[in-house]
Amino acid sequence: MIIVKIGGNILDNPERLQSFLADFAALPGPKLLVHGGGKIASAFGQRLGISPKMVEGRRITDAETLELVTMVYGGLVNKQVVAKLQALGCNAIGLTGADANIIPAQKRPVQSIDYGFVGDVAGPESINVDALGAILEAGLTPVFAPLTHDRQGNMLNTNADTIASVLATALAPKYNVQLVYCFEKKGVLQNAEDDDSVIGHITTEKYKTLKAEGVVNAGMIPKLDNAFAALSQGVQAVQIGDAAAIAQMAAGGGQAGTLITL
Amino acid sequence: MIIVKIGGNILDNPERLQSFLADFAALPGPKLLVHGGGKIASAFGQRLGISPKMVEGRRITDAETLELVTMVYGGLVNKQVVAKLQALGCNAIGLTGADANIIPAQKRPVQSIDYGFVGDVAGPESINVDALGAILEAGLTPVFAPLTHDRQGNMLNTNADTIASVLATALAPKYNVQLVYCFEKKGVLQNAEDDDSVIGHITTEKYKTLKAEGVVNAGMIPKLDNAFAALSQGVQAVQIGDAAAIAQMAAGGGQAGTLITL
Repeated sequence: MIIVKIGGNILDNPERLQSFLADFAALPGPKLLVHGGGKIASAFGQRLGISPKMVEGRRITDAETLELVTMVYGGLVNKQVVAKLQALGCNAIGLTGADANIIPAQKRPVQSIDYGFVGDVAGPESINVDALGAILEAGLTPVFAPLTHDRQGNMLNTNADTIASVLATALAPKYNVQLVYCFEKKGVLQNAEDDDSVIGHITTEKYKTLKAEGVVNAGMIPKLDNAFAALSQGVQAVQIGDAAAIAQMAAGGGQAGTLITL
Repeated sequence: MIIVKIGGNILDNPERLQSFLADFAALPGPKLLVHGGGKIASAFGQRLGISPKMVEGRRITDAETLELVTMVYGGLVNKQVVAKLQALGCNAIGLTGADANIIPAQKRPVQSIDYGFVGDVAGPESINVDALGAILEAGLTPVFAPLTHDRQGNMLNTNADTIASVLATALAPKYNVQLVYCFEKKGVLQNAEDDDSVIGHITTEKYKTLKAEGVVNAGMIPKLDNAFAALSQGVQAVQIGDAAAIAQMAAGGGQAGTLITL
């Protein structure tokens, strides 16, 4: 099964989103989509007079921001993606981590910073795999918004990359899982200045070398750490690339972007 | 199975909502909740500068109103209800008619009035009962926002009473369905001025008499017509009452409000 995560670079551009969804709908076998937020929440936030809250450079989810993301990610973005996938013949079902209690989380404890209504997921063992499995076995394609809940009645804002990797890991014992992170670059770059310098394959050994040589930039390290964590917990392969990687997979053209394996 | 529809009188009051959800969570057996919108969409609409659109006294769903209701009904209200039900031990899953293609609809044809993005449901035969059945059989409690889709990629705004009755009718061949409309009154009143003059039981015959005598007011007629339509298509019983009727059912105290049977 294929789990794909998309972010703002696809969601914020209607033509790119439509083209991506057509490719995603064409992927064979069971699949699952995780979407981030994109600029639309900030745009609605601005119209509602809700300004982004930052503390020491970190984004904070206060009560009104939680309402905003619950509306925009869980409602507008999620349901528009579902309706578009349905029109493409893909039997999508929009979900958050609260639905069917699939992703229970803990409100991040206050230490030096109070992140507000942000949810941390303990690990793949906390995922309700039975409910998610029943949905997949009914032939449905789950579309997850980056939201979880605390089992106390509150929604929580959770990073979409984290949701994708924890779902991939939780499903790995049951399915042969491939995790794909779609972002704005063609893959992990050898040279940050050259968009075509994609590194085709990164293994654990190669990653050590790349880090030692200072090739991978700081922004990529959490993504790659996430990828290796998923692989070490049973996910078969992780790919990092742009929407063209999905198009190539949908067309049966095999791998594009950067393939990551243990 | 019990299908309950709630509207603004419960949704708009946090204490009343919490108390209703505790009773709903306590109902035994398979169940399904349909919620309307309430005042929260109008409040966010006002903050966003989206004014209610009326043509000849009818509410119109233009493109920006559709975005608003998709966010507020499909995101904020739906997910808050789901998170609260989860905290009460009820394994809720939030849905719109687009999810799993459960309720495909047609954009209402323009005749004398263009209602905009309003969805009409052809009938119970258009409901995707297999997908809904798989969700119910997984032990989940569906929570529906009053939204459908046109299978062309667009969400549509659909009356919550209609969604409740069409789902009840579609599930009637498979389940023993009881449909409950929760509203602000204790039931159908004999005397509109007296909130305690609840008519305990209305049959087809009695309904004819009540209409002939002018007892039921104009606002109740569509609700009752809806109820009799559902009954004639296999729904076992319809109840109309306030939240106390659900509390009584949850407590095993039997019928409250107005019972409607053929």
